[in-house]
Amino acid sequence: MTQTSDITRPPKEMVAALKELGAATIAGTLGHMGFRNPHMTGILPQTKGKVIAGPALTLQCLPQRPDLFSEGEYADPETQLHRHVLYHVQEGDVVVVDARGDMRSGIFGDMMSTYFKGRGGAGIIIDGVMRDRPNVEQLDLSLWLKGWSPNYHVQTDIYPNAVNVPIACGGVTVMPGDIIVADDDGAVVVPVSMAEAIIEDGKKHAEWEVFSREKLMAGADLRRYYPLHPDAEEEYQEWRKAKGLTS
Amino acid sequence: MTQTSDITRPPKEMVAALKELGAATIAGTLGHMGFRNPHMTGILPQTKGKVIAGPALTLQCLPQRPDLFSEGEYADPETQLHRHVLYHVQEGDVVVVDARGDMRSGIFGDMMSTYFKGRGGAGIIIDGVMRDRPNVEQLDLSLWLKGWSPNYHVQTDIYPNAVNVPIACGGVTVMPGDIIVADDDGAVVVPVSMAEAIIEDGKKHAEWEVFSREKLMAGADLRRYYPLHPDAEEEYQEWRKAKGLTS
Amino acid sequence: MTQTSDITRPPKEMVAALKELGAATIAGTLGHMGFRNPHMTGILPQTKGKVIAGPALTLQCLPQRPDLFSEGEYADPETQLHRHVLYHVQEGDVVVVDARGDMRSGIFGDMMSTYFKGRGGAGIIIDGVMRDRPNVEQLDLSLWLKGWSPNYHVQTDIYPNAVNVPIACGGVTVMPGDIIVADDDGAVVVPVSMAEAIIEDGKKHAEWEVFSREKLMAGADLRRYYPLHPDAEEEYQEWRKAKGLTS
Amino acid sequence: MTQTSDITRPPKEMVAALKELGAATIAGTLGHMGFRNPHMTGILPQTKGKVIAGPALTLQCLPQRPDLFSEGEYADPETQLHRHVLYHVQEGDVVVVDARGDMRSGIFGDMMSTYFKGRGGAGIIIDGVMRDRPNVEQLDLSLWLKGWSPNYHVQTDIYPNAVNVPIACGGVTVMPGDIIVADDDGAVVVPVSMAEAIIEDGKKHAEWEVFSREKLMAGADLRRYYPLHPDAEEEYQEWRKAKGLTS
Amino acid sequence: MTQTSDITRPPKEMVAALKELGAATIAGTLGHMGFRNPHMTGILPQTKGKVIAGPALTLQCLPQRPDLFSEGEYADPETQLHRHVLYHVQEGDVVVVDARGDMRSGIFGDMMSTYFKGRGGAGIIIDGVMRDRPNVEQLDLSLWLKGWSPNYHVQTDIYPNAVNVPIACGGVTVMPGDIIVADDDGAVVVPVSMAEAIIEDGKKHAEWEVFSREKLMAGADLRRYYPLHPDAEEEYQEWRKAKGLTS
Amino acid sequence: MTQTSDITRPPKEMVAALKELGAATIAGTLGHMGFRNPHMTGILPQTKGKVIAGPALTLQCLPQRPDLFSEGEYADPETQLHRHVLYHVQEGDVVVVDARGDMRSGIFGDMMSTYFKGRGGAGIIIDGVMRDRPNVEQLDLSLWLKGWSPNYHVQTDIYPNAVNVPIACGGVTVMPGDIIVADDDGAVVVPVSMAEAIIEDGKKHAEWEVFSREKLMAGADLRRYYPLHPDAEEEYQEWRKAKGLTS
Repeated sequence: MTQTSDITRPPKEMVAALKELGAATIAGTLGHMGFRNPHMTGILPQTKGKVIAGPALTLQCLPQRPDLFSEGEYADPETQLHRHVLYHVQEGDVVVVDARGDMRSGIFGDMMSTYFKGRGGAGIIIDGVMRDRPNVEQLDLSLWLKGWSPNYHVQTDIYPNAVNVPIACGGVTVMPGDIIVADDDGAVVVPVSMAEAIIEDGKKHAEWEVFSREKLMAGADLRRYYPLHPDAEEEYQEWRKAKGLTS
Repeated sequence: MTQTSDITRPPKEMVAALKELGAATIAGTLGHMGFRNPHMTGILPQTKGKVIAGPALTLQCLPQRPDLFSEGEYADPETQLHRHVLYHVQEGDVVVVDARGDMRSGIFGDMMSTYFKGRGGAGIIIDGVMRDRPNVEQLDLSLWLKGWSPNYHVQTDIYPNAVNVPIACGGVTVMPGDIIVADDDGAVVVPVSMAEAIIEDGKKHAEWEVFSREKLMAGADLRRYYPLHPDAEEEYQEWRKAKGLTS
Repeated sequence: MTQTSDITRPPKEMVAALKELGAATIAGTLGHMGFRNPHMTGILPQTKGKVIAGPALTLQCLPQRPDLFSEGEYADPETQLHRHVLYHVQEGDVVVVDARGDMRSGIFGDMMSTYFKGRGGAGIIIDGVMRDRPNVEQLDLSLWLKGWSPNYHVQTDIYPNAVNVPIACGGVTVMPGDIIVADDDGAVVVPVSMAEAIIEDGKKHAEWEVFSREKLMAGADLRRYYPLHPDAEEEYQEWRKAKGLTS
Repeated sequence: MTQTSDITRPPKEMVAALKELGAATIAGTLGHMGFRNPHMTGILPQTKGKVIAGPALTLQCLPQRPDLFSEGEYADPETQLHRHVLYHVQEGDVVVVDARGDMRSGIFGDMMSTYFKGRGGAGIIIDGVMRDRPNVEQLDLSLWLKGWSPNYHVQTDIYPNAVNVPIACGGVTVMPGDIIVADDDGAVVVPVSMAEAIIEDGKKHAEWEVFSREKLMAGADLRRYYPLHPDAEEEYQEWRKAKGLTS
Repeated sequence: MTQTSDITRPPKEMVAALKELGAATIAGTLGHMGFRNPHMTGILPQTKGKVIAGPALTLQCLPQRPDLFSEGEYADPETQLHRHVLYHVQEGDVVVVDARGDMRSGIFGDMMSTYFKGRGGAGIIIDGVMRDRPNVEQLDLSLWLKGWSPNYHVQTDIYPNAVNVPIACGGVTVMPGDIIVADDDGAVVVPVSMAEAIIEDGKKHAEWEVFSREKLMAGADLRRYYPLHPDAEEEYQEWRKAKGLTS
Repeated sequence: MTQTSDITRPPKEMVAALKELGAATIAGTLGHMGFRNPHMTGILPQTKGKVIAGPALTLQCLPQRPDLFSEGEYADPETQLHRHVLYHVQEGDVVVVDARGDMRSGIFGDMMSTYFKGRGGAGIIIDGVMRDRPNVEQLDLSLWLKGWSPNYHVQTDIYPNAVNVPIACGGVTVMPGDIIVADDDGAVVVPVSMAEAIIEDGKKHAEWEVFSREKLMAGADLRRYYPLHPDAEEEYQEWRKAKGLTS
């Protein structure tokens, strides 16, 4: 019988704090920490305005060969690993699929997506495509994909080979249990070991940015207000007082 | 004088039945029938929510050469084959263009699109781009394209060479008269000779899928409900009774 | 201290007249004048329905090297040329960036975009990506990009090397001070020296196109109404009278 | 029974004169005559030093579909159109194949190549690949291809659909009967209607180029010797006298 | 301490028999057995005329991240997995690397290649590049690569993540222990379970092909000699007699 | 009259020392110094076995537009900037061209190449193609290109816009006067400011590598001999004595 291993999930508060920061702030901090490209390039949000964070369950696809995959034997659902990655889904999990960029095989369709929704999955990220878009979109899932195809998951060149192993997705390595954060900027990976430092860094986001944004929108000088120049410090303090803000 | 041949159109009921099934169901069935990839890859719906089906009128473009195409002689509209494919349009027809992936020449613009709309065309599929998007979008056509360009149809590298000949579009061969079905998943081709079998297969779509979807959405076990496991048969029958369904 | 040169701006009326014509009409006329491809291919409108025209401020990016760019020294904002191109922005200007197609470094983010908005910039065109999409989209800017990334502008492979020099963007050469016109069809470049001829040509847009469009929408013969055939001249004159139009 | 049409062949002297000129001179002249790109881009010489010219027999491939191609029925060799294009080969002919860039199906192998060699074919040009390279190379054919594959001609995605129809190959339209000239620079197409003008232009190749090349190789000034400057006319005439050349 | 598993090697005779057949014959037979594409596309022979066969040792590379790979810790050679795959090399083995198509990091250089040579490795296949070409070529190894780079193996975007796990290379899945056969046509994978059938099929290669090749080279009719037509049977028997061949 | 600036050339000894090291050693050292990718990716040696080093003269190409380039005015050779970059060539110089990857316009042909040879140029590196290959190859130049085309330099999409300005070539920034080193591994750029450090590092190349290479070729343990393990130190010293080497 097919058995695949589960992942270790990070603390809920850690995930929630990262979600609060958003993909751009996280990617920037990771960049300064030496992680040049945490962004899964070419994998686009399919519905505007969604923000998710959650631990990664991974699915690895490989090119088909008749000795490793045949549609006949595959008729037994329990041999289909794209189902098994879903069996592991818990509330808030994110499924990440390495489809090796394939644009012709839809990894999940209507029924799989409904099951994922029913289990409370947070989102799906695929270096490839999904199918049944007219139905899937009614489920209001959070999806980052390269696109859509009416073809099913093993219709052309690939098949699911392993669950919860290290994969690459959109040019980024994803380990099972890594935290994924995705919004309209795209999806980034956060190694659990780097999460605390990122959250800490995020707290430094200064109150003066609100002040500066207001000034810049009114046409003020970028050199004076971003970053905040010492010359503008007094003006900033007045603004704080006017807003009733106390240090 | 330029003469191009028309196509043989399939029965209206056949087209309607295929439209009912949608691209994903058709692609899946074609896949099981040995048609690995009926999906025109990379050709995207330009307006969400459209569904069309209809026989294909085809237009073949080729790279420009001065002995085969010159903008001067081409000034006579009757020599312009992108017009001729439109002359054949009847209510419900789909125009499919092999633009060889060119992203820099807009095959149809505002006036051609209006004429197409006026004749009752069902949709346009292009392995390339259209132009005049601000105006064309007001016509509420159903379009699957690689994108848009302000350039006109022979402005850069290609010109229309033949009407209603076999073409390739998005990596799929399209014969004049094939049935095209397109929705948010993309566009698929249905050879007329395979249409009846597909429609027949579609009827087998079981009533239990409605039951299962309801269960899965509530977080139930995929192994039990999709596909429907014998253990769940009794539960399913109860559900049917409750719904007032009789076999 | 970093100094970059400003551009010479074309007359406001010239810019306004070009905006009126739209990208498709301009691209078509440029094509007939020998400018095969004025369309910046692959750079897509990020918000539907925007139309802009304005003079180009240009920013050139090049691949990173440690002797030309280091994040450390770069900490001084005044050495950052992506800021300098914004310093030049006047009401109605368009910033055009040659990012050499890089999809992994977001040229501008939230604060830079706010500053651009505050100065009255007309739009931003990038052969690459921006970041902070969730925030930037609230600014209601007019943007034509290859996409978005959460990464910041020098996070991966490129850095800003020069301001207001000749660049290529989407396969089109852009000189500082060229007029950019962009709408849902995409962005085109208009050399100032060709602008008058384009505007002149645009005036010839015949009143009969309105008449013809009406006819075509009703299913009339393309050969008779587009272009307007002499046989239809009388019918057209009747239509004009009925509309109360006088020559 | 399968019947495919033959081509009209140009005069032998015309073909010989073009071969004498070589691809670069022809491409240059075609460029000045308004044929921007006669070069089949991306199709590389497989053996250094070959030069061929000859009329084009064309083979068009399209993506596979089960109703148009099945390996079973295809077992009858007479239904295989890649054989039929070879049936037409006469001494000096060039076979040009539109394989739509496919890198995974080898259009011709060992036996087909031997037959082609036996009939005196001049060369083969494919927008795709051949197979059996170890054996084929022993035949000393002249081949311009995108590469090689061990797979046979219908093993993956394409099949031969038509013989001696207009095709595109490497971004260039080829009509049956066009003259192909190929050498280490690549393959160009020459429309028969433009051949005389090209040959005429080639005769103008001035004797002074030999003189100038000699000077340039010795490090002389490009401005003086290429093109030949009036100031160098006297020197050139002396050179001619020294060589015993008379006008 | 880093431990990686070895592979099970197929019988030497099986490997030798496959090498005898060559990549084209094997790919063809695999194709007829339902293995559509056993050819690692885009991975080219670096030295003409080499033929190898041997069991696959595999190396999987993934995109770099600072928590999984840092040049500092990596200074301990024993943590470098590209070394470990070489530790397993026995006489006749083939190393296959999934470098995810990266063109900027040379997986092996001079010293690693010398060690590989010293251990009697049969060849190296990489979905990427090697370095130190001037030195490596003097070793007379058998290499199929996408190209070369002076950069070292972890200089840009990837790092070696695992040894002897399933990988994809050139669009083909390779399992540890699969048999690789490579020649000037490229490299193919042979699942051990399919090897006997391929070898059996290879024996059917008929003697008449030699006869037919001779005829075809002399310009004879393809229909009569390939495949051998019953009408030519008598002629063939005469040829056999003349050659002193007895059944 | 067209005037373009010359470059400052580095000391001859510096160039010679870098040439001695070769591209792989230099790229490796640059990598350790923080220059991730000094390799001009995709630009291949056209003749095996060449090694060059020299200061870069640069030529920048941009997409054509009729107001910036017209073949008519361009007839005056002195307006052609691809000639001007050659005017600057001194013994040992390397011409580097940013052709933006264009595969359809041959930057230099026969006569330009002869002039370059005559002036003692060391080599030409192009992010694009050259023409006249049959003639150019007889000049025995050292060339790193993306390929060849029979088309001339402004035949399709680009034109030369500037000489000795910063460019990108193969994904690497090249400043006028940078040192280029190229061999069969490809071409790398060396900023003059980093050259001394590279040369210094190169001197550390230990004598033991010769010893280790000998051992590895004989099948010895990689762990013991590369890098040289303390356990093997004594053996190494014996080898040195046997060779008559003294410290």
